Amino acid sequence: MAQAQTNEQMKAQLTETNQRSEVKISEGVTCGGKTLLIVGGPCSVESSEQMHTVAKALNNKGINAIRGGVYKPRTSPYAFQGMGEEGLAILGEISKTYNMPVITEVMSEKHADIAVHTADVLQIGSRNMQNFELLKHIGKLDKPVILKRGLSATLDEFLMAAEYIMAGGNNKVILCERGIRSYDTATRNVLDLGGVVALRQMTHLPIIVDPSHACGKREMVADLARAAIACGADGLMIECHPEPEKSVSDARQAISLEHMLEIVESLVPIAEAVGRKMPVAANTAAKRDAVVSLSLRDAMASELHSIRHEVDRLDATIATLLEKRLLLAMEVGELKAELKLPIRDVKREQDVLDMVVKHCSMPQIAKKVREIYKSIMEASRILQKEEAQEKESKVA
Amino acid sequence: MAQAQTNEQMKAQLTETNQRSEVKISEGVTCGGKTLLIVGGPCSVESSEQMHTVAKALNNKGINAIRGGVYKPRTSPYAFQGMGEEGLAILGEISKTYNMPVITEVMSEKHADIAVHTADVLQIGSRNMQNFELLKHIGKLDKPVILKRGLSATLDEFLMAAEYIMAGGNNKVILCERGIRSYDTATRNVLDLGGVVALRQMTHLPIIVDPSHACGKREMVADLARAAIACGADGLMIECHPEPEKSVSDARQAISLEHMLEIVESLVPIAEAVGRKMPVAANTAAKRDAVVSLSLRDAMASELHSIRHEVDRLDATIATLLEKRLLLAMEVGELKAELKLPIRDVKREQDVLDMVVKHCSMPQIAKKVREIYKSIMEASRILQKEEAQEKESKVA
Amino acid sequence: MAQAQTNEQMKAQLTETNQRSEVKISEGVTCGGKTLLIVGGPCSVESSEQMHTVAKALNNKGINAIRGGVYKPRTSPYAFQGMGEEGLAILGEISKTYNMPVITEVMSEKHADIAVHTADVLQIGSRNMQNFELLKHIGKLDKPVILKRGLSATLDEFLMAAEYIMAGGNNKVILCERGIRSYDTATRNVLDLGGVVALRQMTHLPIIVDPSHACGKREMVADLARAAIACGADGLMIECHPEPEKSVSDARQAISLEHMLEIVESLVPIAEAVGRKMPVAANTAAKRDAVVSLSLRDAMASELHSIRHEVDRLDATIATLLEKRLLLAMEVGELKAELKLPIRDVKREQDVLDMVVKHCSMPQIAKKVREIYKSIMEASRILQKEEAQEKESKVA
Amino acid sequence: MAQAQTNEQMKAQLTETNQRSEVKISEGVTCGGKTLLIVGGPCSVESSEQMHTVAKALNNKGINAIRGGVYKPRTSPYAFQGMGEEGLAILGEISKTYNMPVITEVMSEKHADIAVHTADVLQIGSRNMQNFELLKHIGKLDKPVILKRGLSATLDEFLMAAEYIMAGGNNKVILCERGIRSYDTATRNVLDLGGVVALRQMTHLPIIVDPSHACGKREMVADLARAAIACGADGLMIECHPEPEKSVSDARQAISLEHMLEIVESLVPIAEAVGRKMPVAANTAAKRDAVVSLSLRDAMASELHSIRHEVDRLDATIATLLEKRLLLAMEVGELKAELKLPIRDVKREQDVLDMVVKHCSMPQIAKKVREIYKSIMEASRILQKEEAQEKESKVA
Repeated sequence: MAQAQTNEQMKAQLTETNQRSEVKISEGVTCGGKTLLIVGGPCSVESSEQMHTVAKALNNKGINAIRGGVYKPRTSPYAFQGMGEEGLAILGEISKTYNMPVITEVMSEKHADIAVHTADVLQIGSRNMQNFELLKHIGKLDKPVILKRGLSATLDEFLMAAEYIMAGGNNKVILCERGIRSYDTATRNVLDLGGVVALRQMTHLPIIVDPSHACGKREMVADLARAAIACGADGLMIECHPEPEKSVSDARQAISLEHMLEIVESLVPIAEAVGRKMPVAANTAAKRDAVVSLSLRDAMASELHSIRHEVDRLDATIATLLEKRLLLAMEVGELKAELKLPIRDVKREQDVLDMVVKHCSMPQIAKKVREIYKSIMEASRILQKEEAQEKESKVA
Repeated sequence: MAQAQTNEQMKAQLTETNQRSEVKISEGVTCGGKTLLIVGGPCSVESSEQMHTVAKALNNKGINAIRGGVYKPRTSPYAFQGMGEEGLAILGEISKTYNMPVITEVMSEKHADIAVHTADVLQIGSRNMQNFELLKHIGKLDKPVILKRGLSATLDEFLMAAEYIMAGGNNKVILCERGIRSYDTATRNVLDLGGVVALRQMTHLPIIVDPSHACGKREMVADLARAAIACGADGLMIECHPEPEKSVSDARQAISLEHMLEIVESLVPIAEAVGRKMPVAANTAAKRDAVVSLSLRDAMASELHSIRHEVDRLDATIATLLEKRLLLAMEVGELKAELKLPIRDVKREQDVLDMVVKHCSMPQIAKKVREIYKSIMEASRILQKEEAQEKESKVA
Repeated sequence: MAQAQTNEQMKAQLTETNQRSEVKISEGVTCGGKTLLIVGGPCSVESSEQMHTVAKALNNKGINAIRGGVYKPRTSPYAFQGMGEEGLAILGEISKTYNMPVITEVMSEKHADIAVHTADVLQIGSRNMQNFELLKHIGKLDKPVILKRGLSATLDEFLMAAEYIMAGGNNKVILCERGIRSYDTATRNVLDLGGVVALRQMTHLPIIVDPSHACGKREMVADLARAAIACGADGLMIECHPEPEKSVSDARQAISLEHMLEIVESLVPIAEAVGRKMPVAANTAAKRDAVVSLSLRDAMASELHSIRHEVDRLDATIATLLEKRLLLAMEVGELKAELKLPIRDVKREQDVLDMVVKHCSMPQIAKKVREIYKSIMEASRILQKEEAQEKESKVA
Repeated sequence: MAQAQTNEQMKAQLTETNQRSEVKISEGVTCGGKTLLIVGGPCSVESSEQMHTVAKALNNKGINAIRGGVYKPRTSPYAFQGMGEEGLAILGEISKTYNMPVITEVMSEKHADIAVHTADVLQIGSRNMQNFELLKHIGKLDKPVILKRGLSATLDEFLMAAEYIMAGGNNKVILCERGIRSYDTATRNVLDLGGVVALRQMTHLPIIVDPSHACGKREMVADLARAAIACGADGLMIECHPEPEKSVSDARQAISLEHMLEIVESLVPIAEAVGRKMPVAANTAAKRDAVVSLSLRDAMASELHSIRHEVDRLDATIATLLEKRLLLAMEVGELKAELKLPIRDVKREQDVLDMVVKHCSMPQIAKKVREIYKSIMEASRILQKEEAQEKESKVA
């Protein structure tokens, strides 16, 4: 009879060092580090055209992995059961053409043995979270796994399911919260972000969130995606489709490719606010080495375009913050006037410049940011003076 | 027999105009508009000192209302039942001294009739969400109400409870999601942010979130608070206490006042990312008119200090973004070099300056931001040149 | 600050003596003793005629209390809210005319103060299980209370709610399980009979079951009623209506009066199997003293009729068991034949007669049962002989 | 793409004829007919001795099948995982020695392919209810299956899982309700007997109940077993163990073998009350043909003993009912006296005798029952006279 392993020995458990795992999925794509894993794609692989349309649209746009089901766990035996191996071949082609890792669900040991040769990540669905024989089998493969939480699994059971895989030697486990069963039919499931937060205090494994299955309604996906990143998730898995309403499965929750890109864009400041990065740059770098099907010049021109798009987005944010900064400077000016303090405060300016430099990681660039900040402070002083003069003229 | 009112006539329902309600709580404090309602304070009012400590710490720091229970709905009849009217008097004093609205729970018609004279907002707790006689009574008062979702109430039942209040003529209803019952004991309740998102598509009423009761553990509050704002909530209600572990009730979920301030600070970029504002400025303005207990000079010095604190935070963000911007510029430089394009692209620079100006709302400031951007672009050009020279020297 | 009462002092708790409480409701009607409390009646009191029809049909037929709502806790403020005091007057009239205790729900302290003068039992509904101010108020009244379990109340919370009433001095609390919220919409709620069993091991208070609200579908009521009694419940509360489909509220779950009587009849052997008694006899006795509106002769004739009905039911059961007994005797005969044992076994017959006598509680009757058993054993012997002869004739 | 089968074609669905399925398990043992399927045995097969002890104790005592797990779905990978094939061999030996069908759980296609040669029934556990690949595989075998409801499966999902098996051609599906997840920790799960009642109105498949897993506490098993039969379940699966507290798994919910026999005995009147039969007789008959390991004479003596045990139990019930019958006769006598009606009512006696005969199915026996009833009525008359004389003497 096997001896019970004590809690101290659980492989999935967060240790006192608080060290988090980073699971490598493919060259340049990981989950659990600073850069988020953003997975997009349809519920089911339906055709080669469909998958090319999806990959072309998402590639290099802040999405760093593609999903698509070929073995479908449908509630009814008479519903579409997936394209099977034919669908796998399409995923293989997509992975090669766009240099994006592909993720697909397996429902049995046989599926796993076939899909392991094509997929970059195997997915275990909610219904199989405690299919222990499958977990043990996956534990013997050398392949990253996304393990979805069962419909009414406790967090302890969820981690124990991960432990089944890790006990076999496969440590590349990514957990995925996808909503739990509740009494309310207003949403398909209840996305348990509290569970995500609690899991991060229990395990070192990366945790991603699937807002699509959680809510079951496309108009709710964006808000829940933002919430997931805000509470510390390591990534997202979102169902999107070139023509959502024509999806052969889960049509109600799939979003369009355009909507997917909008969501990804909206995530940038949220990710930043919690110390994370969207995957754009990583992909860019990876792509630069890998793109083979386009002429180099075209590729570079396309990349220049895409970097400029990112710069534009950054500039919009910086401009907004600069305005806010200058407004606060004016408030400070007002207060100084009433307190009869001089407008210029050299000590304070020096402090700001020092602090600003500390927030840059590359010295060469820090120098330039310092220069820019001098112009910012100059602008502040000028505004304060203008304000003071205006006031005086009013008084007079 | 009363005739059934049809769905079209439901007062709580979102109409086709998508117009959202903004509930006015006190001078300068509302819920449902652009500025968030951030409520802090202890589970129970325990003493005058305790409440002064809380209000002093939170006032003008991004928290715009104070909560404190005086009638406590305790599971056991033998547990502390609250300070009652004595506690109400303390709340009244706090409201006046710090010019902050105060919120307290009422559990019966009698409580409501007493508290209505002191509290700025009455709260109906989860256990009384379907105490219909109480709801009808509150419906006849002219006082804002925070209505908490029942432990296992559906969203439809939640809105119907609000409708009971509105049917009586009181439209100042703020909904509060605070976690629902589930099978998992890892968290006290499951915070249903999907429910918040769904509610915003069902009703025009403001919706705030109470992450403290939802998770029941202080170490989870911050992450859930950020998630709530990210998914569109109109505010937060967070339990904080000068000495959390000594709280007479719900000690396990209360956070310290310092932790409260940190959370509020971390919310600033999240709020911004979803088009909302933290309440700092509003409070600042309100306070300037109201503070009476401090000498004017001290008040101004204190405010100068607090604005500078905010400027520092802004500068940290701006510096990080500037570095990122310059790094991207260097990437652009590299690409341009390989594509044999000139480093300077006047048309592009002009576009950037135009766009930047558009992101500022005040013309006077836009002009200054434009100037600053010129220095940013100059820094970019210099970096690109330095990079090019370095490469050449390496090649050579 | 109130000192926490320790667990040992909880008034609702089952003590080591395992003594169960019996709550007296009216002359001859109690809950928690050997005789079950069977409550029938409509969801809402709709008219005097309706209630007379109900009471006439149920009176003296195994139902010993009448329910009817006059203050209705409806989800929508625009739905029928009950007849109020007018309905109370009808209940009072019914109670007097038929000498049956009446039960009605109160939703506020005001309701309780009015209803206490008319109703024999006050009911606290699920939505008010933790309306602590109401519970405290009821605790000061001298009136039996049926406290319904909240939609998602734990058993501990349920008992604590009872404790709120008992802490005030009112010990006449009857708990009522009525189904809890779950994720499945196949039934309105999930009837938690495991909860009933667990409660009986936690508290001395009587526990009844409301299968109508639990399932929400009339075709399920009978099976759940039988299950409730089989698992040890002290009674039932069932919604029935003269014209169920015309009920102003909860029409889908109300059963007809005929169906109600059938259910009650089907409960007789179940109650017996678990050592309980249906309330027929108790009522009969009570009625004999109380009926004033019928001529004595008519009343007696009617009672004769009703006892004979019960005898018929008993005879049907006894006949079935006798046949079974005789069949087993024949099997014994066969075996004896093959084992070459004599058909008559005087020692065994004596044992059976002794045992049979022990199962009777009145000596006078035991004597008669002994006589009857002699004729049973004689019939057995004759059958065995006939069987033996038949076999032989076949062999020959 | 597979075409969706319409609802009319669902194989599991109850049709308009209301015809229920009876699944044959082994010679003389079925599920879904009048006779209940009562399964007993330990959670895990631990040794040959253990299983012999269990089978010896339960055989021919109202239990008609043995369960024992050899592949165990444990939450932790480090917990005892079952004896595997060694355990299967023990089950095979038990089945042959005691002529009792054996039931064991399979967790994968491989398990099923091995166990199908030994087990009489394969069990699919809750965690695998939606392991669709396993269901499809089982659908191709010719072997009865017990399919347990998933921890939070809806009834529709449950039936769809059965449909996966039936779609493959295997119609021998027995459903098993075993409790669903809820928020309350007072019981391990919530036994959903309302679900059992609802299922009987949705499907023709037999439905049994596992009260052990539902409550997780041995002291609750008996009450829930009785409730299950009372609400119409087709059988029970109960965990019992020679030394419950030493069980290697689920020790907390296992009952002793003695307790198991007591429960089975207590079910007899409940089963009868709802028109069902406990399996004793069936087993007896089956055993008579099958027992080979005992000398014929010993076997017959043992059977004589066991039939007599059953007769004793019957006599106890009959005696109790006879006393009740005679008591009612005395009440009738009293009423007759007051109504001045003669004690003997020949018409009524004739009616009773006719009715009694109708309740017997074999004419030969009906005749004897008629005779016995004559003596019952004579006893009644004598009692009435004695009562009358006693009264008179009192009056005098």
